[in-house]
Amino acid sequence: MTKPPNDPSLRSWIRVPKGSDFPIQNIPFGIASWNGEPPLPATRIGDTVVDLSILADMGLLDGTGIAREAFLASRLNDLMAFGKPAARALRERLSELFREENPTLRDDNELREDALLPADQVRMHIPVEVGDYTDFYSSREHATNVGTMFRDPANALLPNWLHLPVGYHGRASSLIPSGVPLHRPMGQTRPDPNAPPVFGPTKQLDFELEVGFLTFPGKPLGQRISTAEAADHIFGLVLFNDWSARDIQSWEYVPLGPFLAKNFASSMSTWVVTLDALEPFRTAGPAQDPTPLTYLRTQGHEAFDIALEVDIAPEGGAATTICRSNFKHLYWSMAQQLAHHTVNGCNVRCGDLMASGTISGPTPDSYGSMLELTWRGTKPIQLSNGEERKFINDGDTVTMRGHCEKDGLRIGFGEVEAKVLPALPFA
Amino acid sequence: MTKPPNDPSLRSWIRVPKGSDFPIQNIPFGIASWNGEPPLPATRIGDTVVDLSILADMGLLDGTGIAREAFLASRLNDLMAFGKPAARALRERLSELFREENPTLRDDNELREDALLPADQVRMHIPVEVGDYTDFYSSREHATNVGTMFRDPANALLPNWLHLPVGYHGRASSLIPSGVPLHRPMGQTRPDPNAPPVFGPTKQLDFELEVGFLTFPGKPLGQRISTAEAADHIFGLVLFNDWSARDIQSWEYVPLGPFLAKNFASSMSTWVVTLDALEPFRTAGPAQDPTPLTYLRTQGHEAFDIALEVDIAPEGGAATTICRSNFKHLYWSMAQQLAHHTVNGCNVRCGDLMASGTISGPTPDSYGSMLELTWRGTKPIQLSNGEERKFINDGDTVTMRGHCEKDGLRIGFGEVEAKVLPALPFA
Repeated sequence: MTKPPNDPSLRSWIRVPKGSDFPIQNIPFGIASWNGEPPLPATRIGDTVVDLSILADMGLLDGTGIAREAFLASRLNDLMAFGKPAARALRERLSELFREENPTLRDDNELREDALLPADQVRMHIPVEVGDYTDFYSSREHATNVGTMFRDPANALLPNWLHLPVGYHGRASSLIPSGVPLHRPMGQTRPDPNAPPVFGPTKQLDFELEVGFLTFPGKPLGQRISTAEAADHIFGLVLFNDWSARDIQSWEYVPLGPFLAKNFASSMSTWVVTLDALEPFRTAGPAQDPTPLTYLRTQGHEAFDIALEVDIAPEGGAATTICRSNFKHLYWSMAQQLAHHTVNGCNVRCGDLMASGTISGPTPDSYGSMLELTWRGTKPIQLSNGEERKFINDGDTVTMRGHCEKDGLRIGFGEVEAKVLPALPFA
Repeated sequence: MTKPPNDPSLRSWIRVPKGSDFPIQNIPFGIASWNGEPPLPATRIGDTVVDLSILADMGLLDGTGIAREAFLASRLNDLMAFGKPAARALRERLSELFREENPTLRDDNELREDALLPADQVRMHIPVEVGDYTDFYSSREHATNVGTMFRDPANALLPNWLHLPVGYHGRASSLIPSGVPLHRPMGQTRPDPNAPPVFGPTKQLDFELEVGFLTFPGKPLGQRISTAEAADHIFGLVLFNDWSARDIQSWEYVPLGPFLAKNFASSMSTWVVTLDALEPFRTAGPAQDPTPLTYLRTQGHEAFDIALEVDIAPEGGAATTICRSNFKHLYWSMAQQLAHHTVNGCNVRCGDLMASGTISGPTPDSYGSMLELTWRGTKPIQLSNGEERKFINDGDTVTMRGHCEKDGLRIGFGEVEAKVLPALPFA
């Protein structure tokens, strides 16, 4: 029997630089284009992007259960529609094709030259057409920090928080892939509660360090996905920056939640790391007290040890790492989020996105937003060039990275990065 | 010059029963199927449904700017993608084809038999594939009633309410067309604030009487749609029942808004009545004090006089009309909703849905939800069979209707109807 695709001893005939996020044990999926050709499904090993449409066209991906047409689509949904067993078979097939001892692709010069491209010559796109995007609020530390700042330090967590994974619906239309800049949003705020509201560019532009998961097909409307079934419906994970305008948010959000403060743009990383590739990094999550209701209970490890960090680079300047956090800090797991989301019969479709909410850790340098890092602007952050930041300035580039590492095996996400441009003037 | 399609004197060679919602001046659009064939674009006159794919195939819809392929799609998005001028030209063309003096279709027996079908033999589908669904909260009376019940009667409206159209994102996956039943949702509630939360079927299932509009293509991410431009981006309107579970809602909704209390199902009517057909029914909306910020100001009439009503029919029993309201009561207009939604650069796509929020009028019999009609269950409603209702029971069918009427011209929406089935047991 051949080694499974997560085996740390596997090596590829494709060069993988030391410290790469994309060894042969990763095999993420994305949508790539080059030379102005249409975007197509791809994977990545080291600094090499592999065009899956060419492998499929040669019949090398037959037998995985995925129709060849799915490899000609400009989004991964068509491929994901075949479900977890097919996606797992595809990853196993690719793992075999890339192993150092497999000559099929390695020794076929023509095919190799057609299918393999240097990562720096490739343009990456939004990997999945997202139907519905849900944002959770699953970091206890984040919810506690926000509650402390805006409500009551003695009762920072609202009464429902420890009983259910609080979440809300976000905007799918304004998802952008890593690398696409955004304009500072304009909006209505009320800086002086005794004066009328005013209109202008947000003065409190913030990032939120999040991780999102993308779904395989769920179940029909009315049916539930249990915590035990959840993993069968999760395709993979991406890094996610849920851009937020704090001054717009604090004025608009009662009683129905954030709206224009969030829906102007959300950035996602472009390589979807499969849940299968992350399995070696399962770990215990925080203890849950009180014990959740039955439908939210889980068995075994449902957290994942993913180290996360955030950089800010001012216009023309060097980057400063301002936050180091970890996905494992989340109080509510993905399995619990998905079970809660569907317990009322709400249907999840292939390609839905569920994001974690800001991932803050226990220490001040692990807080996942400027709001928390600078404590509402009262403790500005120092950048390496001597500048201070309370929130994000025009010209700043915010970059988030994430990776797992254990027993010499590193699986990473690459990055999600975006530059903030000045607000667009009114026409 | 021929008469415009809204001219009250127009008559069709297709019979229109007295009091029909669908005279020749309406020409709504929907997606219909019959005899198990695939769903296709259609319109309706009186009790006759007209298959647009057949008219397009005969070239009768050429020259409107809409490609023939758009009439072969199972959703209206493809047709709407050509924008307002094309949709307007299509409605004008159909109006001409249906006029009593036009022999083209009237005297072509074969074509007429192919394209015309009795409405009661047709199955109607969701007319549009909705990308993002936004729900507003634009009725002052509704917001005041809710604020009075749940917060402070002396300060029922929250400080932001008179300054901006409060809204939030809803769930697109669980939209269902009129006629499809739904199961009572299960969920977490906390009936006793001094005891732990419990899980079970909602005990406070409610409807919300709303009207939604569907969008033509908007503008690219980052750009704004002004109030003056809004009508160019609105295709048409539907009746909308935003089902709500009040006990789930009151436990979950702080601080990020409603989630599982709403996303289990939302029902929409199946004929999209174009904004063009509703133009004769523009009227003055409520005076706005304080004057909104510049980007929310409008000129002329932005409200529409659409009479609305809600019936409840118990299992096997007769219907009782329990609410009579009007779309014109809304404080914030569709133009203001769309301008606000995009003022931060949020992009609207072809086929997005924006619903009004519960439309309550000034009198207790015009409240658009059971929550308000029964004042949180304290004043049960009497049905015609003698039963009482505090909220919606299993077996109840809720039906909403809407129409405009002026100078002998009636333009209607038909209905949005759904029956409530018992909660599905856990597998």
